[in-house]
Amino acid sequence: MEKFFSPKSVAVIGASNSPFNLGAMITGILAKLEFEGSIYAVNVKGESVDGFPGYKTVLEIEEEVELAVIITPARFVPDIVDRCGQKGIKHLIIETAGFSEDGDEGTELQKQVDANAKKHGIRYIGPNCLGVMNTAERFCCFFGFNSAGNDSMLRAPGKISYLIQSGGVGALVLESLASDVTKINKLASIGNKADIDESDFLDYFREDDNTEVVGMYLENIQQGRKLLDVAKTVTKPVMIFKVGRSEEGAGAATSHTAGLANNDLIFDSACKQAGIIRLSKISELHSLPKIFTEMPLLKGKRIAVVTNSGAFGGIVADILVDNNLEFPSFSDELQKKLRATGDIFNVSNPVDIGPNLSKQTLMDIFKLLLESDEVDGILPVPNVWNEIVIESILEFSQMCREHDKPAAIYVPNSVEKIIELRKKHNVPLFESPNEAARALVVSLQHYNYKKKKEQY
Amino acid sequence: MEKFFSPKSVAVIGASNSPFNLGAMITGILAKLEFEGSIYAVNVKGESVDGFPGYKTVLEIEEEVELAVIITPARFVPDIVDRCGQKGIKHLIIETAGFSEDGDEGTELQKQVDANAKKHGIRYIGPNCLGVMNTAERFCCFFGFNSAGNDSMLRAPGKISYLIQSGGVGALVLESLASDVTKINKLASIGNKADIDESDFLDYFREDDNTEVVGMYLENIQQGRKLLDVAKTVTKPVMIFKVGRSEEGAGAATSHTAGLANNDLIFDSACKQAGIIRLSKISELHSLPKIFTEMPLLKGKRIAVVTNSGAFGGIVADILVDNNLEFPSFSDELQKKLRATGDIFNVSNPVDIGPNLSKQTLMDIFKLLLESDEVDGILPVPNVWNEIVIESILEFSQMCREHDKPAAIYVPNSVEKIIELRKKHNVPLFESPNEAARALVVSLQHYNYKKKKEQY
Repeated sequence: MEKFFSPKSVAVIGASNSPFNLGAMITGILAKLEFEGSIYAVNVKGESVDGFPGYKTVLEIEEEVELAVIITPARFVPDIVDRCGQKGIKHLIIETAGFSEDGDEGTELQKQVDANAKKHGIRYIGPNCLGVMNTAERFCCFFGFNSAGNDSMLRAPGKISYLIQSGGVGALVLESLASDVTKINKLASIGNKADIDESDFLDYFREDDNTEVVGMYLENIQQGRKLLDVAKTVTKPVMIFKVGRSEEGAGAATSHTAGLANNDLIFDSACKQAGIIRLSKISELHSLPKIFTEMPLLKGKRIAVVTNSGAFGGIVADILVDNNLEFPSFSDELQKKLRATGDIFNVSNPVDIGPNLSKQTLMDIFKLLLESDEVDGILPVPNVWNEIVIESILEFSQMCREHDKPAAIYVPNSVEKIIELRKKHNVPLFESPNEAARALVVSLQHYNYKKKKEQY
Repeated sequence: MEKFFSPKSVAVIGASNSPFNLGAMITGILAKLEFEGSIYAVNVKGESVDGFPGYKTVLEIEEEVELAVIITPARFVPDIVDRCGQKGIKHLIIETAGFSEDGDEGTELQKQVDANAKKHGIRYIGPNCLGVMNTAERFCCFFGFNSAGNDSMLRAPGKISYLIQSGGVGALVLESLASDVTKINKLASIGNKADIDESDFLDYFREDDNTEVVGMYLENIQQGRKLLDVAKTVTKPVMIFKVGRSEEGAGAATSHTAGLANNDLIFDSACKQAGIIRLSKISELHSLPKIFTEMPLLKGKRIAVVTNSGAFGGIVADILVDNNLEFPSFSDELQKKLRATGDIFNVSNPVDIGPNLSKQTLMDIFKLLLESDEVDGILPVPNVWNEIVIESILEFSQMCREHDKPAAIYVPNSVEKIIELRKKHNVPLFESPNEAARALVVSLQHYNYKKKKEQY
C-alpha cells in the first residue's frame, strides 16, 4: 500500500500535450507541487509533458517504475495493464471510467483488466476513480483537481486520512477542509474498487503513524465481513458515511460506482459491533473530525452550556436531549462558585453571562466547569460581537486539552462569519448547535468503544 | 400596530451623550439611516443627541409623539410610562431588561408598568427586547445593532417579516440573511411580551401587503388559543421555531424571557391544525424562506434529481425518502427524450450528465423535467466547477417560475463557496442537500394546507 501513497517513480499513462488532456492535469499538479519522485509521461507520440520525459509505452522506460497512473480511453486499458506487468510495475491506479459501472461492454473490459492484473501479480486502485493524495510527500494524482485553492493543504500535512469511493465527494471534502482546522494526511478515491477495497485502506491507515482519524464514504460494500474484521482491530476513530439507507438511494448509487445494494440494518448493527462511527449527513465527513484532532475525548454524558446570548441556552438544551446527552443542573456548591466569578445572569446550567462581558469572568467560569466533577464536557455558545470573546475561546481551547475534557464550540453568528473566524484564528468552531452536539456524541461513542475494548 | 413600524415621531427615552449609552446607539442608527420621522432624545440633562433635540421629559416636547422607545434602568420605567401617558403617547417599546425575567423585584416593577400602561390606554412591546425594524421606512430601534454590516438590508426591503422573542436570535437571523437572497421586510424582537404578543404581530403581518412570509422564534406561548385562532386566518406561510421541546430546554428558556413551559405535543398538533410550519433547526428560520420568496409552491411529492456528480444522486435519494418525498423512476418515454438531449450518463432518476458539460444539454434536461407530468419539483445538485453551471442555474431559476414548479438547488461545493456564489449571483442556493429537501417539504406542506383551506 505504501507504494500507492509514496512512490519513488510514477508513469502517468495518457498524459500528453493535447488540449484538455486529463493526464496532463496530473503531471501539471506534480510539477507545481515539486513532488520529489521521478515522473514519466506515456502517450502515443512519446512526447514529454510538463518537463517530464515522454515515452510511447512503459516498456521504453529504462528506470524502475513503482506506480503507474492510467487515464486513457477504457478500451486501451487491458493492454496497458498487460504492458505494465511486462515492465514489472506492480501498482496501478486506473482512473479511467467506462467499466462495470457502464453496461455489459464495460463489464467485459473490467474482466480483461482483472485477468491481466492477476497474471502479473499487479494490485490496483479503481477503475473509475480520482486517485490518491499524500500531503506529507506532496504527491497527488487527482485529475480535475484545482491545485490553486488547495495548495496550502498539500503543504501542511494534517491528521485525517480519507477513503472516498466518489471523486465528487472527495472534492467536496477537500474544498470544505480548506476553511477548517483539521487538515488532510492522505486521501484516496477508489471508484469501482475492482481490486483494492476499503478494508485494505483501513488496514493501512490503522498502522500509518501520520493518520489519527479515518473518514470513509462508501456507496456499496462487497466484503462486509472483511471490513468488519479489520475495523475491529483499529483503535483510531473510524467514521463512515454510507449511501443507500433507502432502496432508492441504493439504486442510484449502483448506477454510479457499480456495486450491489446492501442491507442497511445489517450494516448499522455491524458498525456498532466494530466501533465504526456511522455518519448521518455527508457534511459530517469534514465537520466532525476536528472534535478528535483538536480536543480530548468526551468521557461521560453531562454537558455544561455557557452563553452570553440567553436564547441559546434553551435551544442547545433541546438539542442535547435529542442527542441523548445530559444537561444537568449544577449543585449549590458549584453555583455558588460560579456566582462569585462576577456579574452573571444565570449560574445554573446554562451559565448565562449576559451582555456584561469580562474576559476574566468568562475564563473563571470555563475553569470551574472544566475542574468540576459534575461536568464531562462543555458546549459553549458565545456570540462573537466583541474581541474579548474570540480571545477567550482561543485560551479556553488550550485549557480543554490541559483538563482532558472536550468542548464543542458554536458561536451563534452567521456561517459566513464562523468560517471567517475559523480561518483567521484556527479555532475549532462548529457551524450549528446541532453539529456541535453531534461532535460530542461521536466523541463519547469512540471513548466508550475504546474503553470496552480495553476491558477484554 | 402600524405606529410601531411606521411612526411619524419617536422619543428615545434614555438616549444621552454618556459613554456606552445604549439609547444613543438607537439615535445613531436613525441618524445614519436618514429616517424621515421626527426624533426626540430624552435624558436627565435634556441634552440633544446625534443632532436630535433633547428634553428632560416627554412632557416638555411640544409636538405630538406617536412612539416612545424606553431604554433606561428598570427602576425608572414605571414613572416614565406614566409620563408618556400624560403626554398622550399610546405606543411604547420598552427595551430595558430587569423585569419578570429577573426575580421578585423585577416582577413587581412589571406589574407597575402594566398598571400605568392600562391607566392611559397604552399598548407596549417588551420589556427586555431589542425593538423593531421596518426596512421599507428605514426605521430601526435596535440597540447594539451594528448598522455597518446591515445597511444594505435596510436599504433593500424584502418580503419576509419576523417576530422574534430573543435579541440574540434576531441578530443571528439578520447576520445570516446578509448573505442570502431573501431579505427582511419587518422584524420585531418582543422579549417578555407583557402586553403585545406574537398573535398581535401575526394578525398584523397577515394584513401587511409587504409581508409574504412570516418567521417566528418563540420561547413560550402564553395564549395558545389566541395564536391558533389568528394563524388559522393567515394564508401566507408561517414558520415557527419554538424552544422547549424537552423539559430541559423549556427550563432554560424560562430563565431567559420569563415564560411558562408549554406542552410540546399539544403545540405540535396545534401547528398542524393551523397550518403553521414548525421548524426543526434554528437555522431554518433564515435558510428556508427563500423557497417561498423565490420559487412557486411544490404541488406533489415526486422529485427529480439532476446532477453532474454521480455520488449525489444516491445521497439525495436517501434524504428525499427520509423526508417522506418520492424519488420516482421515469417512464421509458421521458427517458428517451432525456437521452436525446446529449451525452449523458444516466437518464432515469437521478439524471446524471457526468463531466461532459454542455449548457444546452443541461437546459434541455431542466425543460423536459419541468414540462413532464411525472415530476412535481426538482432538486438539482450541480457541482460548480465551470462557469456554464452557474449560468445554467440562473436561467433555470427563471424557468421554474414560468412552469410553476419549484427547485431547491444544492451545489456540492464548500459552504464558503456556496455563500460566495449566492451573494455574487443572487441565486437561491441551499447549503446542504438536507436543507434543500426540507425546503421542498415545507413548500408542499404549505401548498397542501392552502388547498385544504380553499375546499371549505
